[in-house]
Amino acid sequence: MAKNKNSKLKVISLGGLGEIGKNMTVLEYENDIIVIDCGLGFPDDDMLGVDLVIPDVSYLEKNADKVRGFLLTHGHEDHIGALPYILKTVNAPVWGTRLTVGIAQNKLAEHSFREKPVLNAVEAGDTVKLGVFSAEFIRVNHSIADACAISIKTPVGIVFFSGDFKLDLTPVEGKIMDITRIGEIGNQGVELLLCESTNVERPGFTPSEKKVGRSLDGILYQNPSKRVIIATFSSNVHRVQQILNASAAHKRKVAVTGRSMINIVKTAIELGYMNVPDGTLIDINEIKRYKDNQLTIITTGSQGEPMSALYRMAFSDHDKVELGPNDLVVISANPIPGNEKLVGKIINELFRKGVTVLYDALADVHVSGHACQEELKLMHALTKPKYFMPIHGEQRHLITHKRLAEEMGVPENHIFVSEIGKVLELDRDGARFSGSVPSGKILVDGYGVGDVGNIVLRDRRHLAQDGLIVVVATVDIDERTIISGPDIVSRGFVYVRESEQLMDQVRQIARDALVECLDRNITDWTELKGHVKDDLSKFLYSKTKRKPMILPVVMNV
Amino acid sequence: MAKNKNSKLKVISLGGLGEIGKNMTVLEYENDIIVIDCGLGFPDDDMLGVDLVIPDVSYLEKNADKVRGFLLTHGHEDHIGALPYILKTVNAPVWGTRLTVGIAQNKLAEHSFREKPVLNAVEAGDTVKLGVFSAEFIRVNHSIADACAISIKTPVGIVFFSGDFKLDLTPVEGKIMDITRIGEIGNQGVELLLCESTNVERPGFTPSEKKVGRSLDGILYQNPSKRVIIATFSSNVHRVQQILNASAAHKRKVAVTGRSMINIVKTAIELGYMNVPDGTLIDINEIKRYKDNQLTIITTGSQGEPMSALYRMAFSDHDKVELGPNDLVVISANPIPGNEKLVGKIINELFRKGVTVLYDALADVHVSGHACQEELKLMHALTKPKYFMPIHGEQRHLITHKRLAEEMGVPENHIFVSEIGKVLELDRDGARFSGSVPSGKILVDGYGVGDVGNIVLRDRRHLAQDGLIVVVATVDIDERTIISGPDIVSRGFVYVRESEQLMDQVRQIARDALVECLDRNITDWTELKGHVKDDLSKFLYSKTKRKPMILPVVMNV
Repeated sequence: MAKNKNSKLKVISLGGLGEIGKNMTVLEYENDIIVIDCGLGFPDDDMLGVDLVIPDVSYLEKNADKVRGFLLTHGHEDHIGALPYILKTVNAPVWGTRLTVGIAQNKLAEHSFREKPVLNAVEAGDTVKLGVFSAEFIRVNHSIADACAISIKTPVGIVFFSGDFKLDLTPVEGKIMDITRIGEIGNQGVELLLCESTNVERPGFTPSEKKVGRSLDGILYQNPSKRVIIATFSSNVHRVQQILNASAAHKRKVAVTGRSMINIVKTAIELGYMNVPDGTLIDINEIKRYKDNQLTIITTGSQGEPMSALYRMAFSDHDKVELGPNDLVVISANPIPGNEKLVGKIINELFRKGVTVLYDALADVHVSGHACQEELKLMHALTKPKYFMPIHGEQRHLITHKRLAEEMGVPENHIFVSEIGKVLELDRDGARFSGSVPSGKILVDGYGVGDVGNIVLRDRRHLAQDGLIVVVATVDIDERTIISGPDIVSRGFVYVRESEQLMDQVRQIARDALVECLDRNITDWTELKGHVKDDLSKFLYSKTKRKPMILPVVMNV
Repeated sequence: MAKNKNSKLKVISLGGLGEIGKNMTVLEYENDIIVIDCGLGFPDDDMLGVDLVIPDVSYLEKNADKVRGFLLTHGHEDHIGALPYILKTVNAPVWGTRLTVGIAQNKLAEHSFREKPVLNAVEAGDTVKLGVFSAEFIRVNHSIADACAISIKTPVGIVFFSGDFKLDLTPVEGKIMDITRIGEIGNQGVELLLCESTNVERPGFTPSEKKVGRSLDGILYQNPSKRVIIATFSSNVHRVQQILNASAAHKRKVAVTGRSMINIVKTAIELGYMNVPDGTLIDINEIKRYKDNQLTIITTGSQGEPMSALYRMAFSDHDKVELGPNDLVVISANPIPGNEKLVGKIINELFRKGVTVLYDALADVHVSGHACQEELKLMHALTKPKYFMPIHGEQRHLITHKRLAEEMGVPENHIFVSEIGKVLELDRDGARFSGSVPSGKILVDGYGVGDVGNIVLRDRRHLAQDGLIVVVATVDIDERTIISGPDIVSRGFVYVRESEQLMDQVRQIARDALVECLDRNITDWTELKGHVKDDLSKFLYSKTKRKPMILPVVMNV
């Protein structure tokens, strides 16, 4: 099958290693490249003002003519969210299951493209041929419907991508992860397994999604007089399906609020991924026509997102839903690390309103969508890979997954804990790291993609920490005199009205520094500004122990 | 006992309600005030640049002559940390157990006072008379040694403060919470119980601190060849004691690093709260003389604090300890909500170094210091209070604690879920809310106490989000001409070198706005600046979807 016996397969993750999110892995063989997933990441706490993060794909841009296509494992943001940005510079056709492509289509519709992106829907079981590669989509269970693993035949053997998965033996939609097919492929011989690592620290098995359904049903049963509001991930189509079913069983109507929830429910219904019991779904505008105990409301905001529908309800800013003591709010999700305080803020506000709140600490209202240790072992046992590369995780997850693979019998030197950009090379002689390609985080802020970098962030952090002092003066450099100023403008430093004396001193010190420079014939702008800055810096630190950004602006007439 | 039959006892929390930290509660009767605890809080995520938060004590300042003393339940920051600030304006004597007072003394030594603070050490069991009040200190278990509940006899009956507590039937230092004494006081009749609420969401009992000791011993046993580094809270004297004991049993020397760890270990040893097995403790400078398997290192940084000793070790910035594959790091703490990402960052860096890491997800290396539901019920059962006010918790905790109290038989209308500043009034006719006093958060930033408020924070947030554009111009307002500028200075907005065209447009728009104003005889500075700002704002939002702070500075010659 190999076109050239010396050719190598390159495996390069451009995201998802040593980080959570922006999952993307490149396979390259001679003139063909395929890309698995195209996800976005969320900004770290120190990326002030940044909206989202996408992978640096300059390597793909350089090789755009080789890129045969993008293959999507499922429709979560961290697997498809960068498509609108990356298809603009690397326009290749996209393949995914129907729901995945449907969700991607919704995202792309909000952007404009010179060339219209081409999206192709497949079914689990289908195989797509792209250059030398042929990719088979294989059903897995996950917290979104229609998720797949992808098995790729390459000239050097089979490369198997687990995708995000769990084993759910009682899935809501009735279809179990196709372990038989995975086992068959394992028997054919898997050269390299790339497997997700999210829950590798958790022992045992992840419970079935059905468990949440039973909990929610029990909650409706035990609260027959309350209005019930359930917040969950909009993409969790099966969770929403179970809420619909339980509500119908308890003779409740269901209304949906929150932009992404409305969108996904609409898409899922249109594509046949959701069965709404007759007459159950009503418009949020109709809720006034029903009593509390006839209503379930499904909402976004389970991660505490400011301005989400649940947030607005909690802070009395939702135009349709006003919460009170006869409401029961279920937060059917666990906070993603970093979101605990945001979620806590909403919970406290709900308690303040007298609302009853059920959340992870108090009830079984969520299960994970990711494989725990025993399920990961199952994936290893089925695929029996020669080589293994853990993906989708921070360093701790990747290395813990490495140890799990060793337990499953993969020799240590056959396991590759990689980094983004690092090239894993496979050929008939084996596998090895071999150099790297450009990679990194491209920050998206408003319309700007990549125009916010380290310098801008450093300045934002500096400004955030201690604020700013602008010193403005006009001088006549030939006459060595100050024409006007120095004026002092400060923001985010101290409350100026109560610090007049300090600001007077600042003005005086700036003036002294300027006069001294002019007297000493220092006319170089940089040097002159440097003097003003240094003198003020020292003074302010000694007085306040703060280091505001100091911006001297000196103009010559 | 009442001096005046119509007089009322006022109970006012100035911190610790609807928030975590800055615990402080005031008892006032006629001309006497006593204050229970004087804690600090940590800034919320949106309090950019703020170092710490202390209670607004203007009510105490106004009544400074009435304040008979501060009573401290234990030596944690959230119970004593505001003393250095508040004793400056409300100088009254302080009472606490020896370790508590010793730790407070260390803190005060870093500040200067006009009048030297007076600290008085008591033993559990002692009673202190302060005006009409007499306060009895009663031993409880907690994650710091020498912690107490405080029972206060007042003219309207006994007010019982639980302090932070747990029931540890096998405490490390050998003394169990004095449940007998608490029961006796309960039999005398408790008018009002104020009980902490931290773990009210958790069922069952908190495990004994000894459990951690056994885990740590097991870890040393199972890792006989490794150097072991254990990060924990410096104030957890018993945890440190157990590390010393386990290390001595395994023939390891113990070195201590991290400023607060060194300080507290020193204080605890001096005051007799820590027994160092002979020859076990060595200076961190001596570790080179020992093999890895002869060493345990105790360090700060269990919360991922940047610049803590563990952080510096992880990032190869510690001058004594360099970590590698023969090191085992134990993080003997759970991340406090909000610190998960910081802790995760360190863990990942340690994995990257090949270090073995044990933490909450992987091992039993921490227990809480706070009472879970069954221990809270025990406190209620022993004190049998007539009235109850849950303290130390966010709204969710206070209300959940209210429900627990109802289960324990306290009538709903005898439970007061209060807010900071709210006055609970008790007299012979009962208890009720009655008005409120000033209260709030005073922000400490560097040397500044209270000079950072909402306006400064709003500006910091604005600057952090999208940065800044300064427009500077000098005009001759009489001649209606621009003398120099407009110059544009930007920080934290875009990477200027790659956005020259945009900055040129900004300059042109600013100039156009100025010229237009001058042409139209607009010479009012505010109006003129407003025009420049509006025009630029609109332009920049349309181009970038960002809203940098725009600061026009226009000077007249």
